[in-house]
Amino acid sequence: MSKYDAIVIGTGSGMIIAERLLRDNPDSRIAVIDKDMAGGICLTKGCIPSKLIISPAEVLYDLENLSEFIDAEVKGVYFRKIMERMRNKVDSESEMIERSLKELDRMDYFKAPAKFISPHTLEVDGKEIRSEKIFIGSGSRLMVPKIDGLRNSGYLTSDSLLYLEDMPESLVIIGGGYIALEYGDFFARAGCDVVIIEMLPRILSNEEPEISRLVHQELSRHAEILTSHRVVRVEEKGEKKTVHAKGDAGKKVIEGEEILVAVGRVPNSDVLQPEKGGIETDERGWIKVNDYLETNVKGVYAIGDANGKYMFRHVANREAVVAYMNAFHNAEVRMNYSAIPHAVFCHPEVASVGLREDQAIGKYGRENILIGFEEMKSTGKGQGLNAKGFAKIIVHKESERVVGAHIAGKSASILIQEVATVMSLNAPFHAILHAIHIHPALSEVVSWACGNLMSVDDYHKMIEREL
Amino acid sequence: MSKYDAIVIGTGSGMIIAERLLRDNPDSRIAVIDKDMAGGICLTKGCIPSKLIISPAEVLYDLENLSEFIDAEVKGVYFRKIMERMRNKVDSESEMIERSLKELDRMDYFKAPAKFISPHTLEVDGKEIRSEKIFIGSGSRLMVPKIDGLRNSGYLTSDSLLYLEDMPESLVIIGGGYIALEYGDFFARAGCDVVIIEMLPRILSNEEPEISRLVHQELSRHAEILTSHRVVRVEEKGEKKTVHAKGDAGKKVIEGEEILVAVGRVPNSDVLQPEKGGIETDERGWIKVNDYLETNVKGVYAIGDANGKYMFRHVANREAVVAYMNAFHNAEVRMNYSAIPHAVFCHPEVASVGLREDQAIGKYGRENILIGFEEMKSTGKGQGLNAKGFAKIIVHKESERVVGAHIAGKSASILIQEVATVMSLNAPFHAILHAIHIHPALSEVVSWACGNLMSVDDYHKMIEREL
Repeated sequence: MSKYDAIVIGTGSGMIIAERLLRDNPDSRIAVIDKDMAGGICLTKGCIPSKLIISPAEVLYDLENLSEFIDAEVKGVYFRKIMERMRNKVDSESEMIERSLKELDRMDYFKAPAKFISPHTLEVDGKEIRSEKIFIGSGSRLMVPKIDGLRNSGYLTSDSLLYLEDMPESLVIIGGGYIALEYGDFFARAGCDVVIIEMLPRILSNEEPEISRLVHQELSRHAEILTSHRVVRVEEKGEKKTVHAKGDAGKKVIEGEEILVAVGRVPNSDVLQPEKGGIETDERGWIKVNDYLETNVKGVYAIGDANGKYMFRHVANREAVVAYMNAFHNAEVRMNYSAIPHAVFCHPEVASVGLREDQAIGKYGRENILIGFEEMKSTGKGQGLNAKGFAKIIVHKESERVVGAHIAGKSASILIQEVATVMSLNAPFHAILHAIHIHPALSEVVSWACGNLMSVDDYHKMIEREL
Repeated sequence: MSKYDAIVIGTGSGMIIAERLLRDNPDSRIAVIDKDMAGGICLTKGCIPSKLIISPAEVLYDLENLSEFIDAEVKGVYFRKIMERMRNKVDSESEMIERSLKELDRMDYFKAPAKFISPHTLEVDGKEIRSEKIFIGSGSRLMVPKIDGLRNSGYLTSDSLLYLEDMPESLVIIGGGYIALEYGDFFARAGCDVVIIEMLPRILSNEEPEISRLVHQELSRHAEILTSHRVVRVEEKGEKKTVHAKGDAGKKVIEGEEILVAVGRVPNSDVLQPEKGGIETDERGWIKVNDYLETNVKGVYAIGDANGKYMFRHVANREAVVAYMNAFHNAEVRMNYSAIPHAVFCHPEVASVGLREDQAIGKYGRENILIGFEEMKSTGKGQGLNAKGFAKIIVHKESERVVGAHIAGKSASILIQEVATVMSLNAPFHAILHAIHIHPALSEVVSWACGNLMSVDDYHKMIEREL
């Protein structure tokens, strides 16, 4: 049995732990395990390839908003070139990571599945390896729902989509979350016939209802969106696949060249078998951790998708640092999830941090929160770009802290950062008001929303009038 | 002689003072004076109309950066429609302000030039008016340099340009500052032949040299840029104007359908005659104020362009609040200019806050500052958009405060805000590092630059290698 100073499972954010340990203690012996391409989901299957694919959609959306003023004819996208660029970047970065893993003498790299056999021992590639410090960053994988006929007809996932050579002429997307929306938005704008089928009453159901509504409205110009529809059966009919969906109003039959399944992710615990190591998981298989990211087994930590908390690379990166500090420097740092922003790169773009309105009301009471709101089109830059969308800021009255912010529209993923940083500093909402914002930049929308606080009731009266 | 509780000269940011006074004390009698269109320079001649005109340039630039992947043919812009939208928005907003000025009983609105006749007394429209509290927000106007033949040949300014019906086929721009660059960038991308002539060795000479270089390089694909050239003579030749410029390497003769003069602004003190009121101005005519924005005459304040400090609407708005608080609430608030961001809406977009590198070295010493740097293309979103540009962060070593930040590239005017807000909170640079940034959003460029601090010497070695 080989013994290591640390075992890192997964080469996504886990690499941060390996790198820090080698930097702080160059004599450390580390085992790094990844059954898949080096670099983790984000680099190899997730946010990076998807952003490389969908980026033209942003320009096409902006162009559409200014079509009155720009004389341009858009014929489509060069899909093969887009896919080629994406694969080149992903492959070269993954290879670079793999090379660095192989080059280091003090590091053993196992490109194979691992499974626990006892609390600090794993079996990988026929070997038993052991460490007092194990970091589980084993990620997640796509969930494929049990739908009659789906497996037979064949389908794309956000994994297999990366190997498409040509753009399908039509695409039926099962799911209405962020992956469904980012790809749906891109393919629809690129000229593919897209139908999005969401089981719940609205797309992006984790976002504020106002955001779902705006995105639905904007995307509907290019794609068909069916909400409250459940896919019950799929058939293959010649070159096409036929999707049968059931809604309150009856049945729908949709034909498409391809089906994209984007309904969520599941843990890799069936492969890793944490239970053999005495490591507790929740009922869905996500590994349970305490505030310090340690599992119930001392010295074993879980970060990233594996712990099932926030499946974002930026969260996993922070968790990696926290777990490392706690494991090797007795830092006793609690992972703080209070100011974690996220974005959906559809168009209008969506970004959010903290609590939704319903969550804030649930936590603090309706009378104890205030809501600020401003539309993009109120700003000079927003007018210039014919930008749709808004910023909604939720403030806890007594503490004067922003507890949530939700932005839809141009550059939402950047605009949200000012709020996230102020929340992370635990500064009051007027920190944003006091900071001078460039006139007339889009960033004014955030500060004006903060200057515009009203009761929950007044807010709802206002948006009924305005939106 | 009419007596007022306040006299406000200018209907730009000065309106904030009038509004606050009426809100806090509805019985106040206020005189508001503006010889020009209501709304101030920003709304009627400056940032708002310019952003409404130039906004298509952003989309055209983004499209150009992704031309490999998007199959689109850009034929040009619909110039008349652009100008029409701009004039409609500006006129309707200005009329709204004018209407509100006329409607209020307690407000006397003089649409005429005013001049001081004694410390608290002005003459306007043949009347003498007096107040213990006078707020000078009289703005500035364009400077027209003394160039042989210029007046005879005729020229555009950023004022008269707003009345263009058709886009000129060719345009010679005298000046290389932000107005020259914003319009130069737009007209060049819209299909006009543009030549920019700057007297100094680089365009945007108030920005970091790295920024000037990048903008020069990018804009050169569409416009000719002559630096270190002084325009010595202008002639009219039939339909064209001929501009004679002199550089180190010799003379240049440039022909153009129109000339745009954009070399800076001068005060309106010749009209207002503050010296008749005993109010001191500097040698150029800008009104001198102390930290509380009060002039040497008690109760007389100067805000906005009139005090010659920062000619940005967002600064004037803040100055208006500070002057109001000091005048009516004895607040003794000092105007804080330490975290004032600004942007140039050319492409790549430019934004900056605080000190430049040379200023930071001058103030703190070369060994006491650190510089952080990151390129847009390091981020996933930046790669997706083929975004050029970078973020440069200047930190004072001992205090760990960001003392300056300079960003060129996509969404710079939004990206700078996180830094400006952290500076305004007087939080250390690691507030940015500790805040979680969305991966892979462009905002990562700011946090990575902060995580990347090095000595001034190392920075220069690095950029010589990389840029």
